[in-house]
Amino acid sequence: MHTSSIFLETLHHRRQRLAELIDFPAILWSGGSSSRNFPANVFPFRPSSHFLYFGGIPLQNAAIRLESGKLQLFIDDPNPSSTLWHGETPTREEIAANIGADDARPIAELEDYLENAATIPVQDAATSTEQSLLLHRWLLPQQPPQGIDLELAKAIVSLRLTHDAAALVELRKAVAVSVEAHKAGMVVTSTAKLEAEVRAAMEAVIIGYNMTTAYASIVTVHGEFLHNNHYYHSLEPGDLLLADVGAETETGWAADITRTWPVSGKFSSTQRDIYDIVLAAHDACFEKIAPGVEYGEIHLIAATVITEGLVDLGILQGKPEDLVKMDLHALFFPHGIGHLLGLDVHDMEDLGDLAGYEEGRKRSDRFGLSYLRLNRPLRAGMLVTIEPGFYQVPGILNDPKIRDQYEYLINWERLEQFADVRGIRIEDDVLVTESGSEVLTAALPNQANNIEDLLKLPK
Amino acid sequence: MHTSSIFLETLHHRRQRLAELIDFPAILWSGGSSSRNFPANVFPFRPSSHFLYFGGIPLQNAAIRLESGKLQLFIDDPNPSSTLWHGETPTREEIAANIGADDARPIAELEDYLENAATIPVQDAATSTEQSLLLHRWLLPQQPPQGIDLELAKAIVSLRLTHDAAALVELRKAVAVSVEAHKAGMVVTSTAKLEAEVRAAMEAVIIGYNMTTAYASIVTVHGEFLHNNHYYHSLEPGDLLLADVGAETETGWAADITRTWPVSGKFSSTQRDIYDIVLAAHDACFEKIAPGVEYGEIHLIAATVITEGLVDLGILQGKPEDLVKMDLHALFFPHGIGHLLGLDVHDMEDLGDLAGYEEGRKRSDRFGLSYLRLNRPLRAGMLVTIEPGFYQVPGILNDPKIRDQYEYLINWERLEQFADVRGIRIEDDVLVTESGSEVLTAALPNQANNIEDLLKLPK
Repeated sequence: MHTSSIFLETLHHRRQRLAELIDFPAILWSGGSSSRNFPANVFPFRPSSHFLYFGGIPLQNAAIRLESGKLQLFIDDPNPSSTLWHGETPTREEIAANIGADDARPIAELEDYLENAATIPVQDAATSTEQSLLLHRWLLPQQPPQGIDLELAKAIVSLRLTHDAAALVELRKAVAVSVEAHKAGMVVTSTAKLEAEVRAAMEAVIIGYNMTTAYASIVTVHGEFLHNNHYYHSLEPGDLLLADVGAETETGWAADITRTWPVSGKFSSTQRDIYDIVLAAHDACFEKIAPGVEYGEIHLIAATVITEGLVDLGILQGKPEDLVKMDLHALFFPHGIGHLLGLDVHDMEDLGDLAGYEEGRKRSDRFGLSYLRLNRPLRAGMLVTIEPGFYQVPGILNDPKIRDQYEYLINWERLEQFADVRGIRIEDDVLVTESGSEVLTAALPNQANNIEDLLKLPK
Repeated sequence: MHTSSIFLETLHHRRQRLAELIDFPAILWSGGSSSRNFPANVFPFRPSSHFLYFGGIPLQNAAIRLESGKLQLFIDDPNPSSTLWHGETPTREEIAANIGADDARPIAELEDYLENAATIPVQDAATSTEQSLLLHRWLLPQQPPQGIDLELAKAIVSLRLTHDAAALVELRKAVAVSVEAHKAGMVVTSTAKLEAEVRAAMEAVIIGYNMTTAYASIVTVHGEFLHNNHYYHSLEPGDLLLADVGAETETGWAADITRTWPVSGKFSSTQRDIYDIVLAAHDACFEKIAPGVEYGEIHLIAATVITEGLVDLGILQGKPEDLVKMDLHALFFPHGIGHLLGLDVHDMEDLGDLAGYEEGRKRSDRFGLSYLRLNRPLRAGMLVTIEPGFYQVPGILNDPKIRDQYEYLINWERLEQFADVRGIRIEDDVLVTESGSEVLTAALPNQANNIEDLLKLPK
């Protein structure tokens, strides 16, 4: 349990800042657990991130009411049978002291404090139904907030967009454990036979630190399928293994790291050619990161460097700047260069694009830009991922329309020589600082040579 | 993907048997994924167990309609963007062939096939709402089934109560991996500093075989709290570590194993005294297991052996059979001796006590019996757990009423000498056979000496 004065000061400061932005009360529910195959067999409980931001600790079936910088906690005392089965659990008063609450009441009393209150729907249906019933309006997790709920959401976005010192302490912890997990994955590769075994070595590091994965791990020799959550493929010597795995601390702060490495321990020359292009794009991006820079520009830098690289290799034909305008890069790099990172791996994505997109901006219709999750000028204290990639997605490259449309811009025969490069991604977590940026994930090598060195370490 | 003829024959046989029991159609939904902290960040998808029993494979957002032994599959073909992001996914027709469906249609056509259909609600709210809307009745996962839904539930219970050969193949796989996980947990204990590290070693085995945990693992030095899902305690030399960890195969079949071992590698004499009592109870139970035997009797055998042992140690005072009648054993062994095991770790607990309790029977009001999850005569093909335990639960033993009530039946001073025994449980998975029983988990030692030998193995 956190009781440090820094922790309490941080929570106090966050709610003071919220009070400067809204003049109505906010009630944030933590949510409850979701059942798996029968009611008592539940998924690991994860509180709402907005609750965690202001409440600080993972409480289940609780709510906090924030008004004028004051915090009221609503939670029931543990009942005797809960003590019997779950062990000694802190009382309401103890929890209230731990998070610096000004007042603490049973959850049933929340109904006396609802007037004019804004909220944000949580993900679990039982709680979002409860929210709807109490506040007399539909609060659905997939629905954009409206009215005072929208005002609250915007206020929270403006706070959570940049991270305070206490958040950065947690984020660095998540990064450190994720770095160790990736190293463990690399080291086990020489003896592993299945993707699942590499995943196991990586997640074991995370579990061993009493953390959880922040999202469903991707550990695959088929990195060309971007959301591939299967782990049954065998590892063959010519394969590249793409691992996108990140830890989340006990209070909910996430890391998000991707590395791609050769199963054999050595990149082939074609794999290294493409790897170095992706790395060049990555490096060009984070050299550019600084307050005031548009994140969309960073995306286009990556697109341009990748396109230039593919032109140099003879895979694309034409002038790189023209090719980028035609979204040629997006055939091989169909996703955005990254996203916000914080309490959620795609931070505040429960609010749609409210956090990711500057007010008044909308997603582009262009294939190469529509998947961009972040489109704002950068500010000091923002944490973003930089994750360029190269993928040969069969659904894209085997599409007759695309092959026809780009018949003369892609040298298809040359591309075939790179058949052993199905998917590469390099993803780091980068903090925007006053003077530029800091790569929080710098302890994990991303150069091909250094990765090959790690792969040689004995298990 | 399963396409073996044995698999298809099994599915065919299961639906033929269902057709012998009900004369109306049954529609079983697989369910969808549940969101964690934002809509796209989901918990690992787990289909409904009833769907898995008849459908065989984990399909998401699908339904099967069973009538007169025929299987209709309702699922949408993967859309192009799903292929883009998730990789090649089988078409409806391919899936239909894989599970031996007689007919396959888009999910939207399900509404033409609803008449007189019974169902069982799934756990995720989006799907159970969909079930309610389509069938025009409230279908809530926590609510007991009624009408034809109840008839369907009873028919499914009568099938799933005993396991066919294909189920046993999967159950044995889950057991084998769980056994390996427990051995890995024992071996890592000598170097681990935290409960979390032992959990990590155990779950890594499960993840490495591309399986999942069947339930939230318990790995704790505070086994006296029965549902303790915290892993942050450090491991101290005098501690006993209780690990209740089981794997689940890709098609959903579960194992459930508990072992308790000394962190130091050696049981203290007090720990071994109690351990041997729990093991004696365990052995007495499974010697008794045979078709026709009442599971409730097995529970009372455990209660009696534990009570006798505690009398022999001087902790309890009185005649064991009298003490059992007074529920004295339940102060130290407050849960039931076990439960059904199959596709759910508490098999079919989504149906309340419909599976666990023989028709017409209800839970006892007695403290020592109310937590009994299974109360039926055993039948060949049933898989049950046998899991006696001994716990010094502070919430029970420090309760002034209890201390007063049992002042002369418990030798409290003698009990204090066993302070280093906070929680012990030994849990095995036992198949009822025609001739008696088979311990599926027999490959994992449960004798104190053998466990001490495993703990000596180098990591």
